[in-house]
Amino acid sequence: MKLNTATENRLADRPFNFSPGPAALPESVLAQASAEMLNWHGSGVSVMEMSHRGKEFISIYEQAQQSLRELLNVPPHFKILFLQGGGLGENAAIPLNLSQGKAADFVVTGAWSQKSAKEAAKYCKATVVADAEKSLGGFYGVPSSDSWQISSEAQYLHICSNETIHGVEFQQLPDLDAIAGRDLPLVADASSHILSRTVDWARVGVMFAGAQKNIGPAGLTLVFVREDLLGRALEICPSVMNYQVMAQTDSMFNTPPTYAIYIAGLVFQWIKAQGGIAEMERRAIEKSKLLYQCIDASDGFYINRVAVDSRSRMNVTFFLKNENLNDLFLTNAKERGLINLKGHKSVGGMRASIYNAVPVEGAYALADYMKSFAQQHG
Amino acid sequence: MKLNTATENRLADRPFNFSPGPAALPESVLAQASAEMLNWHGSGVSVMEMSHRGKEFISIYEQAQQSLRELLNVPPHFKILFLQGGGLGENAAIPLNLSQGKAADFVVTGAWSQKSAKEAAKYCKATVVADAEKSLGGFYGVPSSDSWQISSEAQYLHICSNETIHGVEFQQLPDLDAIAGRDLPLVADASSHILSRTVDWARVGVMFAGAQKNIGPAGLTLVFVREDLLGRALEICPSVMNYQVMAQTDSMFNTPPTYAIYIAGLVFQWIKAQGGIAEMERRAIEKSKLLYQCIDASDGFYINRVAVDSRSRMNVTFFLKNENLNDLFLTNAKERGLINLKGHKSVGGMRASIYNAVPVEGAYALADYMKSFAQQHG
Repeated sequence: MKLNTATENRLADRPFNFSPGPAALPESVLAQASAEMLNWHGSGVSVMEMSHRGKEFISIYEQAQQSLRELLNVPPHFKILFLQGGGLGENAAIPLNLSQGKAADFVVTGAWSQKSAKEAAKYCKATVVADAEKSLGGFYGVPSSDSWQISSEAQYLHICSNETIHGVEFQQLPDLDAIAGRDLPLVADASSHILSRTVDWARVGVMFAGAQKNIGPAGLTLVFVREDLLGRALEICPSVMNYQVMAQTDSMFNTPPTYAIYIAGLVFQWIKAQGGIAEMERRAIEKSKLLYQCIDASDGFYINRVAVDSRSRMNVTFFLKNENLNDLFLTNAKERGLINLKGHKSVGGMRASIYNAVPVEGAYALADYMKSFAQQHG
Repeated sequence: MKLNTATENRLADRPFNFSPGPAALPESVLAQASAEMLNWHGSGVSVMEMSHRGKEFISIYEQAQQSLRELLNVPPHFKILFLQGGGLGENAAIPLNLSQGKAADFVVTGAWSQKSAKEAAKYCKATVVADAEKSLGGFYGVPSSDSWQISSEAQYLHICSNETIHGVEFQQLPDLDAIAGRDLPLVADASSHILSRTVDWARVGVMFAGAQKNIGPAGLTLVFVREDLLGRALEICPSVMNYQVMAQTDSMFNTPPTYAIYIAGLVFQWIKAQGGIAEMERRAIEKSKLLYQCIDASDGFYINRVAVDSRSRMNVTFFLKNENLNDLFLTNAKERGLINLKGHKSVGGMRASIYNAVPVEGAYALADYMKSFAQQHG
C-alpha cells in the first residue's frame, strides 16, 4: 500500500514500544486501518459502522477465524470463540464452564495464575497444587510437574503459560494425561505469548488469550475450546460467558467487538505475510536471546532471576543492581525512542515486552542502549 | 481539521447508514481517528498501543468520563462505569449486582426487556409485571403504569426505555417512588436512545447502554449506577461484572476496551460541539417526526402500529402494505445511498434507525424516497 507523505512522516516518529499491553501493533496494520477508516473496501462505511449481521462484517469475521485457525493449526474439534472481558473475565468463565461446581487445580507461577485461582474459588474448590513462590522462593520458574499434587476430583488444571508480570514462560505445555494419569483437561491462559509459538493441541482443553498483547486491541478475548468440553456450564453462568451459547451463535449471541476483530484479522494476515508462526517464533528467540545475553553479560549490572529454562521470550524482566539509576535508565531510553520499559508496579525494575509487533531492530536498539548505559554507569 | 483529498473523496461516497447497530458514526470522528491512528497527539503510538495505565490513555479516559458526565448532567452520586459485554452482558450483571438473590420486576415492551427477564431468572425470582404483548396485543406501546403489578419483594424494576427492534420508546422514565409507593430502584436499558434526550436522574437506580448504537464502537458498555446500590452483589458475581469492584478501580480491574473508549470520547466531544443533548433531542424530534408524518400520510402504503405516544425517535419501524415490494424498496433505497433499512428478522418490514450520527439530511433523503416510491407503486 502506498502511504501518503503525512503517514510516512508519522512512521518515522514512531518509537519502539515495549508496552506489556495494550501493546505495539504492526505499523502496516495501523496504516491500513487508517486508510480504510471511512470506507471499507468500497462499502461506504467504516468497519465500526457495520452491522455484525451484514455480509461485509461476516466476511471480515470469517476471514479472521480462518486465518487464525490456519496460523495455529487449530484442529476441527476445537471451537474458536471471539469474546469480551479479557483474561480476568475468563478467570470466572472457566470455572463457570468447566468446574461443574466441583474442583479445579492451579499451578501458580505468577500474579495471573494466582488471580485465576482466587476467582475460581467462588465457583468450586480451587486447589493450588504447585506454587513457585513457595517451592522456588519467588516467581522465578515453573515448579517441576513431579511435584504437582493433583486432586482426584479436579475437573481441569489451570496454568498461565506465560506470566507477563514476572516473565516466566512454560517452554512446553504439560502433558496432563501422563502427569495426572487420566484425561484431565488443561486450561492455559496464553494471553501474553499466543501466536509466538506453535501449540500442541493434543495437550489442550481450553486455551484463552486477551487480545491486547499479541493479537490486537483491548476488548477482544479469544477462547479455544475442545468441543467435548462444551455443555458443562453451571446454570448461574451468564449467557455471554457460556461457551456453548457462544459456540452455537458463532460468538454473536451478543454484539461482538467488531472493530477489534477486524484489527485482529489484519494482524493475522500480517503474521501470515511475514512467514507465519514459525517466523514469529524465530524472531522471538532472536529478540529474547539478545536481551538475556545482554543481561547475563553485564557483570551483574542487570539482573534477571528467572530460571534459564523458564525465561519468557515475550516479557524480558530485569532489575538494575543500582536501583537509584532506574529513573535515569527510563528517561534516557525514552530519549532514544525506547518506551514503556518500566516493570510492573508489584515487581519493580524493568520489563521489555517484545511481542510479535516489536521489530527485531527494536530489540537490537534496546540491547545497544543497555550496553552503553551499563558502560557509562557500571 | 483539514482533510486530504483522498478523505474528501471518500466522504462523498458515504451513504446514509440507517443500521440499527453497530451504527453510523459522525464522519468528523472517523476522520480524526484515521488521522491519529499511527501517532496520537505526538505520542508516537496509536491509542490502541497505549497502556491503559499510562498518562496518555488516562487523559483520554478522564476526558471521556468528564464529557459524558457534563453532557448528561450525571449527578455526583452516580458512578459511570466503562465495561464490556453489551446489553446482554448487563442482563446477567444487573441481577447479580442488585437482586440479592431475591426478586426483580420487569415491564416487557419488546424483545430486549423480554430477554432481560429471562436471563435474570437464573439469579432471582423474575416477575413480568406488565407485558405489552398481552395487554396491547403486541409490542405496540408501553402498558400504563397503573396496570403494573409490582411485587413487594422486588429489589428493582427493569425497563428497556427504547426497544430497538419494535421501535417503542418510553417518552419519560417512570417515577417508581410514586408508582410503587416505596424506594424501588429503576433499571433502564437505554442502549438505543442514550444521548438523544435528557435523563431525569432522580428516577434512576441504574442505567446502562451498549455503545454500538448511539455512543461508539461495539465492545464498550456504559453503566451509570447510584452509589448506594453498590456493594449488594451476589458472591457468584464474576469480578468483571461486579459494579463495586469496577467502581473502586475506575473501570480498570481488567483492561478496558481502550480504543472504543477513545472513539466514544470523540463522539462526546462532537455532541458538545453540535450543541449538546438539547440539540441532539431537537434533531431526533425533527428526523422522527418527518418519517412518521411520511408514514401516516401515505394512505396506508406504509404502516406503523406503535401507539403515537410510544413511537421511538431513534428506531422508526414500518411495513409496506404490499410486502411483495420489500425487496424492491430496499434495492432502490440502496441505489439512492440509503442503506440498512431492513427490519429485524423477528419482525420483518423496515426499520430506519436515526441515531445522533445520522444527519437530518439523511432523514429528508429517506422521506423523499419513501414518498416517491409510494407514488410509483401505490
